[in-house]
Amino acid sequence: MNYSVEKACEILERTPVVLRSLLSEISPDWTMCNEGPDTFSPYDVVGHLIHGEKTDWVPRIKRILETGTTIAFDAYDRFAQNENSKGKTLEHLLDEFEKLRVQNMIWLRSLGLSSKDMERKGLHPALKEVTLKNLLATWVVHDLTHIAQITRVMAKQYKEEIGPWTEFFRILSF
Amino acid sequence: MNYSVEKACEILERTPVVLRSLLSEISPDWTMCNEGPDTFSPYDVVGHLIHGEKTDWVPRIKRILETGTTIAFDAYDRFAQNENSKGKTLEHLLDEFEKLRVQNMIWLRSLGLSSKDMERKGLHPALKEVTLKNLLATWVVHDLTHIAQITRVMAKQYKEEIGPWTEFFRILSF
Repeated sequence: MNYSVEKACEILERTPVVLRSLLSEISPDWTMCNEGPDTFSPYDVVGHLIHGEKTDWVPRIKRILETGTTIAFDAYDRFAQNENSKGKTLEHLLDEFEKLRVQNMIWLRSLGLSSKDMERKGLHPALKEVTLKNLLATWVVHDLTHIAQITRVMAKQYKEEIGPWTEFFRILSF
Repeated sequence: MNYSVEKACEILERTPVVLRSLLSEISPDWTMCNEGPDTFSPYDVVGHLIHGEKTDWVPRIKRILETGTTIAFDAYDRFAQNENSKGKTLEHLLDEFEKLRVQNMIWLRSLGLSSKDMERKGLHPALKEVTLKNLLATWVVHDLTHIAQITRVMAKQYKEEIGPWTEFFRILSF
């Protein structure tokens, strides 16, 4: 498909509503389960996305626009939500994520990025040189893969309940 | 987790809204793409779910309740949507799926199934003996894994755009 900022925004702006429709007011049996040690529950994923809105995507876009490849991006803490989500309900986290994402979308659109800007470069601490286009596309893919992760984790809770059907569901053995 | 019909319904009744929030009014570049020959686009998935509402889940529940294991379930056509969705917009399919799912949830709840009913048995043409609990849990897992599939297919459209980040996204190589 032809890449455009507008098509990326189509997905990014929908994610808070998708998460709310999927997770709001369902039983904690669905939202607090994970796939084993150091894996994310649906609750953890929402906290992880909040941390991304605050410390990852927008600061990295700014870093590219302001300093190019001269200063590498700050490293991203994938487990920051273990501290940051403490004591917060899932409903609280869904609200928080939505507010941050709405703000970030308004900010992103206000930049009026051109297709030429998409080729501007930044420095990732591990991956080295990346473009602004790479970063914005990764933001989208990150959203989509975490939605896939949430539904996979939830599906796995019924691994035993589906009985003989297990063999038809490749996803449950991931 | 402890299985209950109510917890299964929590997921089943949300799926139409999840699909609408994810897919409604986004570019066809996102909704008409697939993973290669004989794979589903997001558009195809919605048609597939519609066919399931009409010919799979409810008829199979009825078959278990009415005839037990004496008559096997009818085989399910995984590609029926290729004919049935023809000429229909995605918005039309989202509406159609929602109507059918709402009707089926009202019907399912009206049965007042007990935990004893969950052990009633039916005959799957390939898997042989299955319980009503297996069938209802599979309905949920089928929804969740198709949502995962939709987001995976969409994410793959940016496989090239994310550049060096590919190595962090296991899901894109499935």
